[in-house]
Amino acid sequence: MTINISSAHTVEVGYDEFCGALAARDLQPLWKIAKQLMPEVPLPTTQPWIWKWDDILPLAKRAGEIVTLERGGDRRVLAFANPGLRGLPFTSTTLWGAVQYLGPRESAPAHRHSPSAIRFVMTGSGVYTTVDGDAVHMEPGDLILTPLWNWHDHNNSGDEPMVWFDGLDLPLVTTLESIFFENHPGMLQPVEGHDLSERTFTGVGLRELGAVPPAVHSPLLRYRWGETDRALQALRQARGGPHVSLEYTNPVTGGPVVATFACEMHRIYPGQRTATRRKTGSSIYVVFRGTGRTVISGQLFEWAPGDVFVTPSWAAVDHAAGETADLFAISDRPVLQALNLYRHETSSAPQEVVGRFSPS
Amino acid sequence: MTINISSAHTVEVGYDEFCGALAARDLQPLWKIAKQLMPEVPLPTTQPWIWKWDDILPLAKRAGEIVTLERGGDRRVLAFANPGLRGLPFTSTTLWGAVQYLGPRESAPAHRHSPSAIRFVMTGSGVYTTVDGDAVHMEPGDLILTPLWNWHDHNNSGDEPMVWFDGLDLPLVTTLESIFFENHPGMLQPVEGHDLSERTFTGVGLRELGAVPPAVHSPLLRYRWGETDRALQALRQARGGPHVSLEYTNPVTGGPVVATFACEMHRIYPGQRTATRRKTGSSIYVVFRGTGRTVISGQLFEWAPGDVFVTPSWAAVDHAAGETADLFAISDRPVLQALNLYRHETSSAPQEVVGRFSPS
Amino acid sequence: MTINISSAHTVEVGYDEFCGALAARDLQPLWKIAKQLMPEVPLPTTQPWIWKWDDILPLAKRAGEIVTLERGGDRRVLAFANPGLRGLPFTSTTLWGAVQYLGPRESAPAHRHSPSAIRFVMTGSGVYTTVDGDAVHMEPGDLILTPLWNWHDHNNSGDEPMVWFDGLDLPLVTTLESIFFENHPGMLQPVEGHDLSERTFTGVGLRELGAVPPAVHSPLLRYRWGETDRALQALRQARGGPHVSLEYTNPVTGGPVVATFACEMHRIYPGQRTATRRKTGSSIYVVFRGTGRTVISGQLFEWAPGDVFVTPSWAAVDHAAGETADLFAISDRPVLQALNLYRHETSSAPQEVVGRFSPS
Amino acid sequence: MTINISSAHTVEVGYDEFCGALAARDLQPLWKIAKQLMPEVPLPTTQPWIWKWDDILPLAKRAGEIVTLERGGDRRVLAFANPGLRGLPFTSTTLWGAVQYLGPRESAPAHRHSPSAIRFVMTGSGVYTTVDGDAVHMEPGDLILTPLWNWHDHNNSGDEPMVWFDGLDLPLVTTLESIFFENHPGMLQPVEGHDLSERTFTGVGLRELGAVPPAVHSPLLRYRWGETDRALQALRQARGGPHVSLEYTNPVTGGPVVATFACEMHRIYPGQRTATRRKTGSSIYVVFRGTGRTVISGQLFEWAPGDVFVTPSWAAVDHAAGETADLFAISDRPVLQALNLYRHETSSAPQEVVGRFSPS
Repeated sequence: MTINISSAHTVEVGYDEFCGALAARDLQPLWKIAKQLMPEVPLPTTQPWIWKWDDILPLAKRAGEIVTLERGGDRRVLAFANPGLRGLPFTSTTLWGAVQYLGPRESAPAHRHSPSAIRFVMTGSGVYTTVDGDAVHMEPGDLILTPLWNWHDHNNSGDEPMVWFDGLDLPLVTTLESIFFENHPGMLQPVEGHDLSERTFTGVGLRELGAVPPAVHSPLLRYRWGETDRALQALRQARGGPHVSLEYTNPVTGGPVVATFACEMHRIYPGQRTATRRKTGSSIYVVFRGTGRTVISGQLFEWAPGDVFVTPSWAAVDHAAGETADLFAISDRPVLQALNLYRHETSSAPQEVVGRFSPS
Repeated sequence: MTINISSAHTVEVGYDEFCGALAARDLQPLWKIAKQLMPEVPLPTTQPWIWKWDDILPLAKRAGEIVTLERGGDRRVLAFANPGLRGLPFTSTTLWGAVQYLGPRESAPAHRHSPSAIRFVMTGSGVYTTVDGDAVHMEPGDLILTPLWNWHDHNNSGDEPMVWFDGLDLPLVTTLESIFFENHPGMLQPVEGHDLSERTFTGVGLRELGAVPPAVHSPLLRYRWGETDRALQALRQARGGPHVSLEYTNPVTGGPVVATFACEMHRIYPGQRTATRRKTGSSIYVVFRGTGRTVISGQLFEWAPGDVFVTPSWAAVDHAAGETADLFAISDRPVLQALNLYRHETSSAPQEVVGRFSPS
Repeated sequence: MTINISSAHTVEVGYDEFCGALAARDLQPLWKIAKQLMPEVPLPTTQPWIWKWDDILPLAKRAGEIVTLERGGDRRVLAFANPGLRGLPFTSTTLWGAVQYLGPRESAPAHRHSPSAIRFVMTGSGVYTTVDGDAVHMEPGDLILTPLWNWHDHNNSGDEPMVWFDGLDLPLVTTLESIFFENHPGMLQPVEGHDLSERTFTGVGLRELGAVPPAVHSPLLRYRWGETDRALQALRQARGGPHVSLEYTNPVTGGPVVATFACEMHRIYPGQRTATRRKTGSSIYVVFRGTGRTVISGQLFEWAPGDVFVTPSWAAVDHAAGETADLFAISDRPVLQALNLYRHETSSAPQEVVGRFSPS
Repeated sequence: MTINISSAHTVEVGYDEFCGALAARDLQPLWKIAKQLMPEVPLPTTQPWIWKWDDILPLAKRAGEIVTLERGGDRRVLAFANPGLRGLPFTSTTLWGAVQYLGPRESAPAHRHSPSAIRFVMTGSGVYTTVDGDAVHMEPGDLILTPLWNWHDHNNSGDEPMVWFDGLDLPLVTTLESIFFENHPGMLQPVEGHDLSERTFTGVGLRELGAVPPAVHSPLLRYRWGETDRALQALRQARGGPHVSLEYTNPVTGGPVVATFACEMHRIYPGQRTATRRKTGSSIYVVFRGTGRTVISGQLFEWAPGDVFVTPSWAAVDHAAGETADLFAISDRPVLQALNLYRHETSSAPQEVVGRFSPS
């Protein structure tokens, strides 16, 4: 039997009735929606937005008082929910940003999941995250990886709370309908050693002879702030310019730390403004140090330490610093590059500021 | 200025007031939604579904009578809209399937877009699609590529209509907020030659010395049914078994025809039933030839030539043929593999059938 | 203990005595040999050379009469020994070319080795080579692979002798001091099937879904002349020009058939002359069909069917055909490309002919 | 015209006459040489050998007195000539090792070549090598790259001589007949900056965002001893065992520093002996620190700081340290791996020592 076209009849209906017949059969006519489906340039539903530390911190502290960590409520996390995304707890269509608050002497139980996560420490000390047996210590400015399907639990052995930024590919993996999750049999996993991953990657361009770590994610789990700071200074010496930007990479492949997003650090010097850039894909920025402002599609966002903001796909973006500013960022660029969808352009003229952001 | 934690106050509010304060600041508490966000296995919104040729064809024919092709209404396309996707015209969260109807002596104007498309010819003849100057002829069972950002227009120079299946990565590229679209300055683009891409790829494992085609997509734009049929027969001779499955590949890299989805052909022999498989990611099947039934998560779907059905992520799926069946399919597997999210498992026991699909 | 420089004395000797002292300690002074070691352009020891079918065939036939195939004398092979290579049985510093003669009802015993071999059939029929259990049939113009460490034996089941060209990477693997060799426990290996490798690669850009052949070499073991001929004709239609050139590739990766050399087919049309090219690395050509002449560094080589010639690294080379000529070639280009040492240039002006080759 | 077999006559000659006829036509019969050509395991011509610092240093110093650096005699280099290689100035069939001596206030003129070189500093200070404009400073234990086709000159701005080890792929590139060499128009090239390459690679897993250095070689040109030493210590802490081994890698790709050889550092702890290993391909070792002995194919080689020794392909090799020893090494492993010819095996039993090396 092959596909038959000749015998079929035509339904003798008018246009409205025809549209109704389509809907009844779960068919949609492209010609009515082509422009929305295929716009000339991206029309993101992700909105540019900012969350202020002054709003976040009191609520995170309060959560620390009234929410208990336990199996089934594994994490004390407040997600940055983009108002453009119909109530979903996602910061963009591909990226999830959140703050996590871990009080003194608290532990968050061990589990693993197919989405990958990074932690960027905002404030606090005395915490370690165990990642597949490696107790990875966390200090402000450190980037910690808990990549896909690695067991991880968080432990605060100190007397002060820690607040960190959580970055995940959760929205993307949700769209890809590929989320797996598993609780560890114990509340916490056994610790095999401390900062083990760093010991095999202590020197630039040096690695254990014959070691073949899986290429799925970076085998280095902690990128210390001291190293990052030194690298930024060295790069500035070599390059000059209004800002320097680093990417955190997998030391074994040179690729991104995980396949689904990139981690970056941007240092902008006082009084400097970056060129205006557009790129496909979204980014979430965490202000680690300094003050300044970012213009996104003509709208001005002012920021200070602890603030978090998101830039949508193809939005014109530039940053300017009041005092020296360090912006940590995650970006879905690796996904777009892998799928040949990455585009970017830089314009020499600064973009005009047409408004100032204020949440309605 | 660095992030300050000590000075901040706590908001002395009760739990309900606290939740309200979060919502007012576009923050969402993870602990309330963790189970939905991170299920143990994928809980797809994509539903298993089937569209019957007997429903599709009369409506496509009627569309041929009452919808005119013109700039701005470039294509006469009926999209398979999955009922699980909140009214979106998408077949799964990553894949778009549709039928396109092109009447005798009609042309669909030239444009290009960042989503990639394939065309699988269901019925008709006398049509060619010009792809960046190469007039690619289309016959039933042929697979035709119009990859990302290639100019393409469709032209029916014959006396009968053609109906083909359109497969696109449109839902994924929509989520990635990376759609670009451009109309060609002319209604149609100039033709530089006919079936040019096939001439450089006539023999298996043979290619022009020194040619370096872009690795972004397959440089071969037409995969003829005759070749596919021969390859299926040869593979069957070599392998035996209840079915044989081919992937259409980029002859230069061995990879998928485009980065965002794979194209496959499955031949199932009469009275045979395939093993039950789960995989992450969705597939859309087009019944090109034969009859049979597919069980998806225990639900039975019967199919005949021209029918189109979709399998969601991680659903248990097996196929059985009444008469020899050829199922063309597209799958988002290359995306999941690129992002290290591909999982699959095969079970030896046939799955139990618990119901039969009937659209409500 | 670290390296000590201060305590050491200087040897108070004159220059000649000094040179003698160096030699006695297996040291050589660079400044005396720098120009020979590091010439401005390659100064190959490989000489351009030709071996004539009229010389080869009678000797091959005679070998068929007086040399018996048996374990320990597994193959009846005459190697093309380049006069520039100090008596070594190598055609260039990287490539080995030879003719192999297999008489009616003869078999050459099964063995395997780390060098890779190809067979290009010059004349005869009724022969198959078993490669890891796959009985691969051989007809004139076919390219047959017996890649590294695959068991292989040759069997003539017919009544006429077969003569084929053997191409190996033996000189390179000798330099890399990495030759391994093993006799099969039996004289011949068991046959599992006939031309099995072709059945999984029958169509261009089509392959078994989910098959993951080792990337070490092409899984396709036979490239039939009919396919090659068709591909040359199609390419000519698409391109025009004085000649068309194909590379035989691994259909799974698009790379060369083995990592150590490439296989090519060049068709030159009557009365046409190709542009003059230089490239790093050597090539061995086998004249399969037609007559013509090749100019190598100003020296003219005339050729007819069955002749074999070699072009050294960085020599200026152009070919011209009297009647339509098909030149099969192997080249070490993949090695040079993998090591970033491949260079080539094409000159628009034809090179001047300053002499005609005649072996002294 | 196609290849003709029927018409040819056989030469009616006896076996000896037949062999003479072959030789006269530059043909060689495989059956006479098959065992030498294709041994069961590698039979390297490279011999295990050692050059003693006590021999090298006085001769290098004397060369400093009687050999002047000038254009055409660009370098004061003493090559380690393996006695097995027929008088060639090569240390193995693929690798060149040498010492270079640069006196106070001397410069070695700028040139470039297609072979790649590394410099491992044995003793001295105050020297920099300019590599494509980047003045790279050299201290004992530093590894400096001057990769293929990079302009480089060496400059001693201090008051003491420097001696370093030169490692090159010269023998391999000679066999590949692909050597190009060019003098710089000036004696020295202009300096654009100092240790520039290090500034973009200061932190492990950190690199300039968006920088796309060529993948042909490592963009990092200096690997400081301090970093290497720290990495060895950290690895020891993580691993324990009788020795630790590092590979110097391209920080952008994770691959070897150049495509043609690898650079390694081995630290062996006092009283420890490594397992016995065989591998295809050769290595040259430079004793940077400590004393010990190496057994190569049963022969014992004792070494002290400054000594250089070579291990041939497939030789059984183990090392033992008297006091903590640091062995720098180069190896052709990347070439063998790229060509699928790399094999290695480790034996648990220590090899028997059957003799002690003494140069005849």
